Amino acid sequence: MWTKKEVAKRLQIEWPIIQAGMAGGTTTPELVAAVSQAGGLGTLGAAYMGAEQIRTAFGAFRKQTDKPFGVNLFIPEPFDPDQPVSEAVRQAMNDVRKSLQLPPDPAVNRYTESFEEQITVVLEEKVPVFSFTFGMLDQKWIRALKQQGATVIGTATTVREAAALEESGVDMLTAQGSEAGGHRGSFLPDSPSNLIGTMALVPQVVDRVRIPVIAAGGIMDGRGIAAAFALGAAGVQLGTAFLTCVESGAHPLHKKAVREASDESVVLTRAFSGKPARGVTNAFISLLEPMEQELPTYPVQNGLTRDIRAAAAKQQNKEYLSLWAGQAASLSQDVSAAELLHRLVEEAEEVRRRL
Amino acid sequence: MWTKKEVAKRLQIEWPIIQAGMAGGTTTPELVAAVSQAGGLGTLGAAYMGAEQIRTAFGAFRKQTDKPFGVNLFIPEPFDPDQPVSEAVRQAMNDVRKSLQLPPDPAVNRYTESFEEQITVVLEEKVPVFSFTFGMLDQKWIRALKQQGATVIGTATTVREAAALEESGVDMLTAQGSEAGGHRGSFLPDSPSNLIGTMALVPQVVDRVRIPVIAAGGIMDGRGIAAAFALGAAGVQLGTAFLTCVESGAHPLHKKAVREASDESVVLTRAFSGKPARGVTNAFISLLEPMEQELPTYPVQNGLTRDIRAAAAKQQNKEYLSLWAGQAASLSQDVSAAELLHRLVEEAEEVRRRL
Repeated sequence: MWTKKEVAKRLQIEWPIIQAGMAGGTTTPELVAAVSQAGGLGTLGAAYMGAEQIRTAFGAFRKQTDKPFGVNLFIPEPFDPDQPVSEAVRQAMNDVRKSLQLPPDPAVNRYTESFEEQITVVLEEKVPVFSFTFGMLDQKWIRALKQQGATVIGTATTVREAAALEESGVDMLTAQGSEAGGHRGSFLPDSPSNLIGTMALVPQVVDRVRIPVIAAGGIMDGRGIAAAFALGAAGVQLGTAFLTCVESGAHPLHKKAVREASDESVVLTRAFSGKPARGVTNAFISLLEPMEQELPTYPVQNGLTRDIRAAAAKQQNKEYLSLWAGQAASLSQDVSAAELLHRLVEEAEEVRRRL
Repeated sequence: MWTKKEVAKRLQIEWPIIQAGMAGGTTTPELVAAVSQAGGLGTLGAAYMGAEQIRTAFGAFRKQTDKPFGVNLFIPEPFDPDQPVSEAVRQAMNDVRKSLQLPPDPAVNRYTESFEEQITVVLEEKVPVFSFTFGMLDQKWIRALKQQGATVIGTATTVREAAALEESGVDMLTAQGSEAGGHRGSFLPDSPSNLIGTMALVPQVVDRVRIPVIAAGGIMDGRGIAAAFALGAAGVQLGTAFLTCVESGAHPLHKKAVREASDESVVLTRAFSGKPARGVTNAFISLLEPMEQELPTYPVQNGLTRDIRAAAAKQQNKEYLSLWAGQAASLSQDVSAAELLHRLVEEAEEVRRRL
């Protein structure tokens, strides 16, 4: 079994606590640097960033610390940009646009960034840790990353996905329990159920694979960290807990919604991106809930909601923002990332002592 | 914060490990007695038993040990026995009946046992621990149970339900995470989401209430037990882990299905009872899945599937049995209850030491 120490050593960090690579502006270079500087592993959520934007973020990060850090990208999947959108969905979205003073039926120029361009920058910049979600990484990239000494981390939501990732040659994997905020990392088809809670997922994955397992989903404080290690994880990944930190670039209304969330107000939805993701419920989620089955798939729906999310952010309207959050959002704190990391380590040690 | 020791002391047991009161024949007096005799708390799942059947089970239990034990009942809820059943559902169920050589459209004589009669026996027999699920217990019963020194335990699936139960005066509560097998204990309406994972539910409930919290959902071994205590629980409840024990009355095909389950093959369904419950997927669940929304509510659907489940059990056909199981079913073992309890305690201690 892998120990916390071995994982920390491999990642060249002090504590095996990883800040999740949340996409969409949350993971500013300031947040990533603060986490890494404090002894954890900061991760740039670069999925929605173009190659040059990623390079600029690396530069900004490296001005602040010489500690290692990670980058997270989404594995691209085939999609039909011309898939039909049902009239009910189109009408509902245009009603929202009207309320935000936006023109109807916007043209979407681009649904995703080029993965090849993104990962090429990751390689050129010799990023120490590369993590990915939504699928398997091509062998050529795994080889190239390993050749230059990078640690490669995949994301699994089931035992089957974990086994497939191990087989592909990744160094470690994140076991993402159903409590996790943001997008579900699920990628294997024909799954009767891929919403496995962290408590059930982690030990089953640990028993199945030989590589280190990083637990994610519902971990917000020292209690969750100690629990994850008890389950056999050798590292932990926290997203929501870092989202509300001072250095996070999440919209102030997003941070507020997360801090004020209850366990029940955090729901799974395809409304914003076409892919199941967890966040605080709001008017947009409720509006599209009855047509959840008809929504376009990812990344088409993501492209179609871009103007709505941007306008809502500008207009300070949380009802049309994606308020990603995990199921223990109510445990989030309004502190600096360094202070949070410090508290996490102290609390986990306290929990360990009282057990 | 409540400690494990305090809860064990209050329940007059050695280890704060509770065998869940699974309804439907699993919790034989032999299983309940074996768990209690080994130092945990055995619980008779008496929800589907009539008053005299319960009394007989108590007698059988008491012949085997003088240790304390618990009884679990379902709180009754109003229902319409004459609710219309859609033609699609009726047809699908009659097709199943035909394949099992059963006559179509059976008359259902009784949907539930009398709760008043059930709890009257519990009081008359001075049962040390009474736990309930699916709602709140009437004040008169809480008072009567407490007056004779019984410990009263409610079941919550959200922080709001936990707060309501504490307010009602229960002594402890079980926080049932979404990983749990069998019926969801949810009872408060208007919940955007009541499938909260154990990792997220337990610490939020612990922070909200002042009474001891017993963690349930996905706990199968010493790792899960240590994790639950790390999260702040002062006791743990395991169902699936005890279901496969030698003394359990679960159908042999049920035990086999649980042991061979994967994380992904355990799904949530209303097919068997009309109320969401978690079990290993099979032909019956798949058949009714497309009409999940149209199914009659509990306990009407439960009454309507009774003949099917009984025939499937007799004919050794697992495809039409309710194969209740939690999301970590694959960690189950084929051992005696005493041996399981012994292993759980040892493993949890080992985990504690390596943390």
